[in-house]
Formats: sequence, C-alpha cells, structure tokens
Amino acid sequence: MNFLEERILKDAAAKPGNVLKVDSFLNHQVDVELVERIAEEFKNRYADTAVTKVLTIETSGIPIAYATARQLGVPMVFARKSDSVNIDGQMYVAEVCEPDKETSTRVVVGKRFLSPGDKVLIIDDFLAFGSALQCLCSIVDSAEAEVAGIGIAIEKGLQEGGYRIRNLGYRLESLAIVEEVDPHTGEIHFRQQF
Amino acid sequence: MNFLEERILKDAAAKPGNVLKVDSFLNHQVDVELVERIAEEFKNRYADTAVTKVLTIETSGIPIAYATARQLGVPMVFARKSDSVNIDGQMYVAEVCEPDKETSTRVVVGKRFLSPGDKVLIIDDFLAFGSALQCLCSIVDSAEAEVAGIGIAIEKGLQEGGYRIRNLGYRLESLAIVEEVDPHTGEIHFRQQF
Repeated sequence: MNFLEERILKDAAAKPGNVLKVDSFLNHQVDVELVERIAEEFKNRYADTAVTKVLTIETSGIPIAYATARQLGVPMVFARKSDSVNIDGQMYVAEVCEPDKETSTRVVVGKRFLSPGDKVLIIDDFLAFGSALQCLCSIVDSAEAEVAGIGIAIEKGLQEGGYRIRNLGYRLESLAIVEEVDPHTGEIHFRQQF
Repeated sequence: MNFLEERILKDAAAKPGNVLKVDSFLNHQVDVELVERIAEEFKNRYADTAVTKVLTIETSGIPIAYATARQLGVPMVFARKSDSVNIDGQMYVAEVCEPDKETSTRVVVGKRFLSPGDKVLIIDDFLAFGSALQCLCSIVDSAEAEVAGIGIAIEKGLQEGGYRIRNLGYRLESLAIVEEVDPHTGEIHFRQQF
C-alpha cells in the first residue's frame, strides 16, 4: 500500500453513492506535505519524458498540478470553465458533459499557452467518468501538442473513466485506484497495482 | 519598483474598462518561479506572526496560497463556492455580492478546518471591490479565529476594496497597487509603496 492509499484509509470518509470525501487533506483543506509527495511521485514516474507544461482544469486539481510543475520546473496552465471568466483572444474550446449532470460546461485554454512541440503532463485530483480529462486531451490535440501522460491522485475504478482513457492509448498513472467504498462499514478497497 | 511590478509592466495587457490581463503568468498560465517569489515575499512580510493556516477562495488565488502555505509549513484551505460543490457537515457560510454582478454567491468553509486559536493568513491574487475578502474575514471571525493578515498580489487602487479592508483595521499587504490602466497607451501606473 502506498502513502496515498494509507492516507485515504486514515482520513477519507466513505459516503452513500460510492462517494469518497477527501476534503480534510486534498480538495478543501490541502495538506501541503502530502501534495508535494504526490507531485514527487508524478515527477519520478514521468522522469523519462521531457515535459514542457503541466495542464489541469479548475479547481481542485490546481494544488497538485502547481506542485508538479514546480518540481519539474515548467509552467502550469489551468483550463478555465468559460462561464466563470472572460478570457480574451484566441482559445481552444472543448465541452465537458458529465453523465451525472444535465448541462455541459465549456472549457477553454488560451491558444498562446499551448504550442506544437509542447509535451503536456495532464494532472488532476480525481478521475471518475473521465469527461474533463478527455476535454483536456482534445485541447492538447487541437494545439498539435503531445499528451506526455496523465497523472491522477485518486481514480474511481468502478467508473469507466480510467478504462476509457487507457483504451484511447494514453499513459495514465493513478496513485490510488478505489474499487469499492462501503458506506455502511466505511471500508475502502483499492485495486492492486504493480 | 519590485519584481511583480516589473513583471506586470513587461507582460500584463491593459484592456478597456480598467482591466489588467495577467493570464500569461498569474491566473491562467502560471509562472511557478514568480509565484514562489510572491509567496516568499508574503512569508517574509508576515515573519512576525505565527501563521497556522493559509486561506483563499477558489480559483485563481490557489497557486499563490498553496505556495505560501508550503513555504510557511502550514495547511492551506480554499473556500468553496457552494453551488459548485457538495460539502458535507457543518460549514461556515458567507455571501459575496460583487457590485458588478447581479447575483450573490455563497462561500463556504468546513467548520473542521478553522478553529479558535488559528492565526489565518488570507491570500488572493487580486483585490478590487474586496467583497470576497470580506467574506473570508467574516468566516474567520465566525470560527473565532484571528486574521493574522492579508496578502494580495495585485490590488486595484482605483476600486475601494483596499481602502475598505484597511479601514476595518486589517493588516493588508499588496505587492503591487495599480492606480491607473490606460487602455489606449497601455500605460500602467503603480502607487508608490515604502
């Protein structure tokens, strides 16, 4: 069991509907030491690729993406949801349609910030359905840049996002893959990874 | 002129409506080295206070708040806009009413993450009207914690936020105070600080 899985067992709360609350250390209060360790792990796993940019989407992936970018010594870009901001100039646009929401959200990245030749490491805190991630991949494709890889802190193994993304041929590293969350006993089971 | 003022002159774009675009280095693409320097400046300016927590509000203040928390060795908390997230349990709630928007937004922080005795350093990238900042201050008050101080990267001197916050007796450190942005000439004038 790795450090993130141990931390999840110690501090995450299992809720009905297969929900895992990690708001005490990852996506509301942020444990800086933990995030630095996650970032270090991504840096090591992608040490064989010459990453030029780290990309995430607002909001809760930003601390991990920032920490990874700092450790790699490259800029970080966070894609913005277009209803929340007025960004000038030419933009790459993609639509996120989460299966559990009725509306779709436009996601934008300024064209100035991704270029052909960029090797982009996409980072996020959670992977469930994978819609946001597919958006980011399509934006990188639009820029004729390369997805060097994807780093996820917590993948929800029961939802199809991970399967879908790996099937598309992307290299996806998830530090913890949660297979099952029991809301009654609070038990959390991880997929064994080697 | 300090390093942030120099960077603004070099890379910010002045737009009609007194708007300053810093999306190439601060709030869309993020220059990690610059953010670390901003964080270091806040750490130094608040070296005389025993900060226990850094607080910001989603989204674009998160990188600076995270970097400051890391340099201080304390946790970071980002307040969430309640329509964007389902947070369980007891929460401190405040309303942001920006003068330039018709709707108000609920801002929440989980009660577990702020306690009496906490010395809270509030961090954000921009200060204009100060509504979001007043929200954060009122949440810290609700928790019977103490606002150790406020650190802002760019204050818009023409809007009343800085005046209001200082008038309330808070210690506010803004690294750059923009007095005027000329959309025609692109000239940017800073308030001289000592």
